[in-house]
Amino acid sequence: MTDPFPDIPQVTIVGPGLLGASVGLGLRACGYAGHLVGVSRTQATLDEAQRVGAIDAGFTEIGPAVQVDGKVVVLLAVPLGRFAEVFKKAAPHQRRGMYLTDVGSTKLSVCAEAKRYLSQPQFFVPAHPMAGSEQQGPTHAKAGLFRGKPCVLCPDDATDENALRAVTTMWEALGAVIHTMTADAHDHQVAAVSHLPHLLAVLLAQTADEIGPLDLASTGFRDTTRLAASNPPMRADIITNNRKPIAEAMDRFASRLNDLRGVVRKGKDEELLALLEGAQEIRRGWEQRRADGAG
Amino acid sequence: MTDPFPDIPQVTIVGPGLLGASVGLGLRACGYAGHLVGVSRTQATLDEAQRVGAIDAGFTEIGPAVQVDGKVVVLLAVPLGRFAEVFKKAAPHQRRGMYLTDVGSTKLSVCAEAKRYLSQPQFFVPAHPMAGSEQQGPTHAKAGLFRGKPCVLCPDDATDENALRAVTTMWEALGAVIHTMTADAHDHQVAAVSHLPHLLAVLLAQTADEIGPLDLASTGFRDTTRLAASNPPMRADIITNNRKPIAEAMDRFASRLNDLRGVVRKGKDEELLALLEGAQEIRRGWEQRRADGAG
Repeated sequence: MTDPFPDIPQVTIVGPGLLGASVGLGLRACGYAGHLVGVSRTQATLDEAQRVGAIDAGFTEIGPAVQVDGKVVVLLAVPLGRFAEVFKKAAPHQRRGMYLTDVGSTKLSVCAEAKRYLSQPQFFVPAHPMAGSEQQGPTHAKAGLFRGKPCVLCPDDATDENALRAVTTMWEALGAVIHTMTADAHDHQVAAVSHLPHLLAVLLAQTADEIGPLDLASTGFRDTTRLAASNPPMRADIITNNRKPIAEAMDRFASRLNDLRGVVRKGKDEELLALLEGAQEIRRGWEQRRADGAG
Repeated sequence: MTDPFPDIPQVTIVGPGLLGASVGLGLRACGYAGHLVGVSRTQATLDEAQRVGAIDAGFTEIGPAVQVDGKVVVLLAVPLGRFAEVFKKAAPHQRRGMYLTDVGSTKLSVCAEAKRYLSQPQFFVPAHPMAGSEQQGPTHAKAGLFRGKPCVLCPDDATDENALRAVTTMWEALGAVIHTMTADAHDHQVAAVSHLPHLLAVLLAQTADEIGPLDLASTGFRDTTRLAASNPPMRADIITNNRKPIAEAMDRFASRLNDLRGVVRKGKDEELLALLEGAQEIRRGWEQRRADGAG
C-alpha cells in the first residue's frame, strides 16, 4: 500500500463521530502514514475514537490540533448547527497549507458561513460524502463507509487549487466517487432525492396513522416510511439549512399530487396508466444506471 | 402432518398464477390430501402450474372444475378487472357446499360484483391475503408465501357460516394471520398503508426526475420509490377499484403537506422538530409491534 498523500503529514478530524472516525479509519486502511488528530468538546468521544484506531491523538480545542509543520487537512464533521462556531475558532489559525473540508449535508449554508467566518475561505473545499448510518458515534465507524458512495465537491472560482487537489485526493483515497457541482446545484439535487423523500415518509406515517390502525401495513409501508425513523434533531438541522430548495421541491410535488387526485377521482384510467408507466420507467432507468455504475 | 380440512375433497384455483399456485403449493405442503384443480384460459399456465405441483389437473372452463361430489372451495385469483366475468361464469354452478373466496386487493368492489353476479352470494367469503412478489406466474409460486402475512376476511351478516369456517381454515392452514373487518374498513386501511404509499412513490420518482439528474440518489431514494417500479396495469386496476378511499387518503396527505410547506418556508423550527419526533414515534411503534407480532 502506498501512502495516498505523503505530502500531507497530518489530517485533523473535528468531530470524530460516525463520519469523522470513518474517515480516520478509512485513511489508515488505505495506507495513509501521516498523523491523525481528533478534536471534540467531549473527552469520551476522543477516547473512543482513539480506541477504535480512528485518531492517534485528541484535543478539546482546535488550536493545538492544527499546529503542525507543513500541510494539514482539517475535516469538519460536526452537525450543521455548529459550523459557524467551528469556522470562527479555526479562523485565527488559518495559514497557507491548511486546507479545510467538511461532511455537511447542505452546501450553500455551509459556504455562506465559511465566507463569513473564515479569514481565508479559499482554503475551504465544501464536501458532502453521501454515506451514513442509522447509528452514531465512533464505535460504529467503518473504514469502508465511503467506498463507492458519491462525494460531492462544491469548489467555486475562488477555491485554492492546492486545497482542491489535496481534498480531492483524500476523498478519492477513501474510495468515494467524486461529483463536482455548484453548491446551489447540490442543494437542489439533495432536496429532491434525499430531503423531500424524508418529509414524504414523515407525512405518510402520520397520514396512515390518522386513518386507522396500521395492522395491515407491510413491506411497502415499511420501505416508504423508513426515513421517518431517522434522527429528528439532525434532520431538522438539515431542513433548516436547505429551506428554499426543499420548499420548491414540495411545491412541485404538491402540484403533481393535486393533478393525480383529479385523475383518481374522475377515473381517467388511461391517464393513470400512462403516469404509472412513466414513473416505472424513471425508477427502472435509475436502478439500471446505478447497477451499471456499481458493476 | 394431518390434513387441515379432510371434509373438503377439492380446492379449485381459478387463475393459478403467482398467488393462486402458491395456495396450491401451500396446501400440499401443509398436508392437504384433497384434489387441487386449476382453471385458466391459458393452457400454458395450467401446464406450468401442474409442472410445479400446484394443481393436479387443469381446465379452461369453470364448469368441469367445480363438478365434484361433496364440498369444494373455489379460490378466485384473477386480476380485479376479471372478477365480474368469473362470477358470471361461476353463478350457474353454485350449490350448497361450494364455497368461494378470493385474493383481490380491494374488497368493496369485489363484494358488489359478487352480490350482482352470483346467484348465492352468501357462499362467497371475501379475502385479501397481503402477500405478493415483483414476479408473476406459477413458476415463481412459493408454498410459504402467505406464512405470517395478514389475510383480511370481510364476511357480512349474510355470509354462510360453513363457508366462513371452510375459508378461514384454508387461509389458516396456509399460515396467514387472519384479520376480520368490514370491506369498507379494509379498503380504507389498504388505501392508507398500501395504495397511498405507491402513489407517493410514483410522484416522488417523477418530481425528483423533473428537478435534476438522479446521480446523488441513494438508499433513501431507493426505498421510498421502490413501489414505483411495480406492475402498472395491476396497480391501475387496484386504484380504479378503490378510488374513493384513495382520493380521501390523498386529500388528508395533501393537507398535511400544505401545512408542512408553511412550517419549512417560515422556519418554524420547533414545530418542525415536534413533527419529526411524532412521525418517528409512529414509525418506531409500528415496527416494534410488528417485531413483537412476528416473534
